[in-house]
Amino acid sequence: MIRFDCDYLEGAHPKILKRLVETNYIQQAGYSKDDYTKSAIEKIKKSLNNDNVDIHILAGGTQTNMIAISSALRSYQGVICADTGHINVHETGAIESLGNKIITIENEFGKINANQIEKIVKEHYQEDAPEHMVMPKLVFITLPTECGTNYTKCEIEEIYNVCKKYDMYLYIDGARLGYGLCAKDTDIVFEDLPNICDFFYIGGTKCGAMFGEALVIVNDKLKKDFRYYIKQKGALLAKGRLLGIQFDTLFTNDLYFCICRQAVELSLKLKNAFIEKGYKLAYNSFTNQQFIIMSKERYNKLSDKFVFFKWKNIDDESLIVRICTSWATTQENVDELICNL
Amino acid sequence: MIRFDCDYLEGAHPKILKRLVETNYIQQAGYSKDDYTKSAIEKIKKSLNNDNVDIHILAGGTQTNMIAISSALRSYQGVICADTGHINVHETGAIESLGNKIITIENEFGKINANQIEKIVKEHYQEDAPEHMVMPKLVFITLPTECGTNYTKCEIEEIYNVCKKYDMYLYIDGARLGYGLCAKDTDIVFEDLPNICDFFYIGGTKCGAMFGEALVIVNDKLKKDFRYYIKQKGALLAKGRLLGIQFDTLFTNDLYFCICRQAVELSLKLKNAFIEKGYKLAYNSFTNQQFIIMSKERYNKLSDKFVFFKWKNIDDESLIVRICTSWATTQENVDELICNL
Amino acid sequence: MIRFDCDYLEGAHPKILKRLVETNYIQQAGYSKDDYTKSAIEKIKKSLNNDNVDIHILAGGTQTNMIAISSALRSYQGVICADTGHINVHETGAIESLGNKIITIENEFGKINANQIEKIVKEHYQEDAPEHMVMPKLVFITLPTECGTNYTKCEIEEIYNVCKKYDMYLYIDGARLGYGLCAKDTDIVFEDLPNICDFFYIGGTKCGAMFGEALVIVNDKLKKDFRYYIKQKGALLAKGRLLGIQFDTLFTNDLYFCICRQAVELSLKLKNAFIEKGYKLAYNSFTNQQFIIMSKERYNKLSDKFVFFKWKNIDDESLIVRICTSWATTQENVDELICNL
Amino acid sequence: MIRFDCDYLEGAHPKILKRLVETNYIQQAGYSKDDYTKSAIEKIKKSLNNDNVDIHILAGGTQTNMIAISSALRSYQGVICADTGHINVHETGAIESLGNKIITIENEFGKINANQIEKIVKEHYQEDAPEHMVMPKLVFITLPTECGTNYTKCEIEEIYNVCKKYDMYLYIDGARLGYGLCAKDTDIVFEDLPNICDFFYIGGTKCGAMFGEALVIVNDKLKKDFRYYIKQKGALLAKGRLLGIQFDTLFTNDLYFCICRQAVELSLKLKNAFIEKGYKLAYNSFTNQQFIIMSKERYNKLSDKFVFFKWKNIDDESLIVRICTSWATTQENVDELICNL
Repeated sequence: MIRFDCDYLEGAHPKILKRLVETNYIQQAGYSKDDYTKSAIEKIKKSLNNDNVDIHILAGGTQTNMIAISSALRSYQGVICADTGHINVHETGAIESLGNKIITIENEFGKINANQIEKIVKEHYQEDAPEHMVMPKLVFITLPTECGTNYTKCEIEEIYNVCKKYDMYLYIDGARLGYGLCAKDTDIVFEDLPNICDFFYIGGTKCGAMFGEALVIVNDKLKKDFRYYIKQKGALLAKGRLLGIQFDTLFTNDLYFCICRQAVELSLKLKNAFIEKGYKLAYNSFTNQQFIIMSKERYNKLSDKFVFFKWKNIDDESLIVRICTSWATTQENVDELICNL
Repeated sequence: MIRFDCDYLEGAHPKILKRLVETNYIQQAGYSKDDYTKSAIEKIKKSLNNDNVDIHILAGGTQTNMIAISSALRSYQGVICADTGHINVHETGAIESLGNKIITIENEFGKINANQIEKIVKEHYQEDAPEHMVMPKLVFITLPTECGTNYTKCEIEEIYNVCKKYDMYLYIDGARLGYGLCAKDTDIVFEDLPNICDFFYIGGTKCGAMFGEALVIVNDKLKKDFRYYIKQKGALLAKGRLLGIQFDTLFTNDLYFCICRQAVELSLKLKNAFIEKGYKLAYNSFTNQQFIIMSKERYNKLSDKFVFFKWKNIDDESLIVRICTSWATTQENVDELICNL
Repeated sequence: MIRFDCDYLEGAHPKILKRLVETNYIQQAGYSKDDYTKSAIEKIKKSLNNDNVDIHILAGGTQTNMIAISSALRSYQGVICADTGHINVHETGAIESLGNKIITIENEFGKINANQIEKIVKEHYQEDAPEHMVMPKLVFITLPTECGTNYTKCEIEEIYNVCKKYDMYLYIDGARLGYGLCAKDTDIVFEDLPNICDFFYIGGTKCGAMFGEALVIVNDKLKKDFRYYIKQKGALLAKGRLLGIQFDTLFTNDLYFCICRQAVELSLKLKNAFIEKGYKLAYNSFTNQQFIIMSKERYNKLSDKFVFFKWKNIDDESLIVRICTSWATTQENVDELICNL
Repeated sequence: MIRFDCDYLEGAHPKILKRLVETNYIQQAGYSKDDYTKSAIEKIKKSLNNDNVDIHILAGGTQTNMIAISSALRSYQGVICADTGHINVHETGAIESLGNKIITIENEFGKINANQIEKIVKEHYQEDAPEHMVMPKLVFITLPTECGTNYTKCEIEEIYNVCKKYDMYLYIDGARLGYGLCAKDTDIVFEDLPNICDFFYIGGTKCGAMFGEALVIVNDKLKKDFRYYIKQKGALLAKGRLLGIQFDTLFTNDLYFCICRQAVELSLKLKNAFIEKGYKLAYNSFTNQQFIIMSKERYNKLSDKFVFFKWKNIDDESLIVRICTSWATTQENVDELICNL
């Protein structure tokens, strides 16, 4: 079986494993105070062309979202996000379990816009009695979205302006950030990020690392005492060196973006092949995920050889499947799939 | 100014004040272990014709909802309710602040139905990985709803059956329970309640008491250690006698329902007058709240003499106003309003 | 039976009930926006000779402590208090249930001192890795203490200086504040309070009210959005007028301190009688509570006629009993007890 | 510099890295549903000679403690542990941040005993009003303790009996479990563990793994829905295979205990050398940690070449240092240290 069902099917990019082996016996301080973490942080800052950010490397996406968001909010403040937002649907109520309400907005292909946000904020600020409702304080967006779509720089800037107008934070979940930035449907470049939001994370797990996400905090108000939150939520690894080594490697010689560019190319190759064969797309994605409408008959046939992710049932006849590429996807497997379409 | 904007504008039914004065010097045990609370509980049980329930009298609606719901759930379990549900919109995220997600369903005139509930529950039980989503464990409905509408006995039984099928609890918020049960659009009677849900509360604050809500727990699983939750959430009054005296009075000689019946009659009198004068209703309510569509011109004119609650803007020309009656509403004030329509 | 076991055995001072009856039919805005609450707040400010405080009237002590303390802290910050502190022992983990650790210090007759606090704070600020421990951020003291003892002004000022040195808040639980300020063993007067702490509450429930505690917030940092916390924790009464009327009455013509002074006088009369009869005191209290060491034989004999609170067993032969006076304690009952010693 | 300050200074046992490299390109299901995790769990069960346990592999100790403990408790229930317990002192209030109180008992060399536990439980069950105090529901002990000391099987059985008597759970933190079981001062063997507690964890991070702790749940009541807690607290790694591979390797050919035995031998060699040179021990440890009383002069001298952990200041002249061995400690470095004593 050849699996295309997600982007975390294999271990890690071989350069990362190589570095782990090379550094294994070198003694280092614990709790992310090691040399590799320091070096990784410096490289990311350089890559962002911004020295005025705080960077913390954590183990996974849900962990990063829950710590970042809960550290920014008081109990009466809420998060605005798309109804399809990962924190709303697929993190088992992690945000709520730490005390904050999620206020949802109807998505369009995974995205929300500045007007929608301003409208819902206004509804929450009733003249007489605002304290009967949660106070919106943070907007959560994903770049690229769960549907593989992207925001343009202008769209995010408009959202960020609404946030600043109402004294709210903007947070970008970048679980697949590298794939998003390598896609043709956005004009955002890596070093734009600190200028268009208050904090964001650079996804590692799905972009070549064994595990790890680098949270970048831009807004000074959010930096204070952050390591307390990390430790308290069980996210301060004794051997933080592991996280440091991985991001140090990913941000050496542009490896992070090389990995993502290659996966995006293979994804587009697949996309084009599907289109040529007459398949319809559920969303028009330029990232490493493709969402294909498929008859169940076809799906069952292909399932003899390939594993896809069943994204959503359409009706008794057809469904949407998700197909992912990653650092480990080979040209051969892609061609094999194309041959079978 | 004559106020009709809510049902908590005055103090308490005079019989309650009379009892407070009469009992003032009698020494009683603290923390709801007094004789009045015991007597109130006995009377409510008798009125429910059910001796197998636990009853705790708390101070207010948000407090009762948050304690009842959070006591029934683990952190990974969620509450299903209408998008207009009070806990979702007007309790400042109290449920989430104690760790539980609210899963909303689109309301129809404040109500939700069994089919909607079953559909959303199924979506949350994905074959492979249910643990990535919150587990629905409790359904929250309001009787009567925030829109003044009612459920029929059959509608609630259908909901309750879905709850039992999926091992979920059904909770009924009865902030205005008395008004609901006195309305013509439901066939539910008071003693039905323990048979059609797992727990519910009998609203006092809006139905004649100074303050206080009587939570009735039917399901044995929910009874254990309940006083711990009350104390921990700051809801165990040192002088619990106050709550006891109020409910003891309300459930003596049917006072609770006398109060509610009278308010509903005045409400219907108003409703009919509005209809006769050509006003449209936003919702067809048979309880103590009426929701009238009114031009802003008319609203402003009436506002010289009367206070209504601005429920919702329709457009630049018109709005919906809420008009409430209560134990303290007088025939004279109702007639005065009718004269001015 | 004549009960002396606590100070919340009766209803409320008759002047409060009188006001409730008088105002019962007057329509007022809900949620503590009524005229009585406004008036009560003005009177308290005047009595404190301080116009720059925010005052919120809540229903009970545990509720007030949990809302005040949790609103001041982030999840990684902790509260320092005496091991006998009410929040540590008798509030069912309310503070922890909202996410904050309590760091205890050994008490001396219910009190803690500035040196103890500074020592424990230093232990929590380890050079390398402070984030592995909770950050002490608030000191909780009780005036008077659970043992009936008092702090002097100088003692509290020393504690407050340590707090300011380490950027911590000082909070005073004044459940029995009136009795404390009427006692001979402190030089603190009411209007000192805003100058020697960041926030405190004026206890009503145990000092003449039916229920209610007035939280006074001095430090501007703690004032923001406070009503959100009140609403979210179920503490915003629809008929906040009830709380307003009570405190308005208590702070009219010095009623609050008249009540407390009288109770303290009766308490001291009892204390002296016990001493004359050869009883030993567990703590030397000048407030409305006395803690008497008594043989069990004597205790059992007295229990035919009087109810005391069993504070603590000493051994098989003897115990400490607590005896309380209040606004409702009569000269006759005090004399009756003295006759029986 | 040769570091002896902790047992997480290097990466991982080389056999683990080898397996990571070998398996890197094999596609596996995510979220701990991979083959390696399944195999690891089978091997641990076999090693425990118990098929009736649930095993979940998590990333770190604080994470494991907080998820295990909070999943077992309701908000009004508390954890009993030694005042020196890791959850009480060095986990930044993680347990409290999820809502549960820690009730501390004075430790003796890191240990607590059955009598102490029973005494404190009884104090929490006051006849009249238990709900004013937290309900003790779980006892937390560490094997071996933070001081390197051990419990005997009989001591733990006595504690477990008290737990069962009062319907409480017993949880064992095994961050250094391997080192504890290889020490001479306990008669506990690995397969005893499921018989003497309700749940425990097998520490990986400090015993040869890169990271990872295997939680073993014995009591059926604690097994239900456990993956929900893992996901919600951000602890369900997308590439759970990493955790599986590590524990699969550690439990192949007894590697886990080989690693620990060797480290303990080197630790005892150091201990004996210290004793011979006239040093005093703070605690009599037979595990991989030694606690040596040292003059500051001596400490400073040794610090030219060696890094120790400053455990505690004794006075101006002397201190206690902690010295750790691990899988990576070499005979050469141990001899080098001995030469310099």
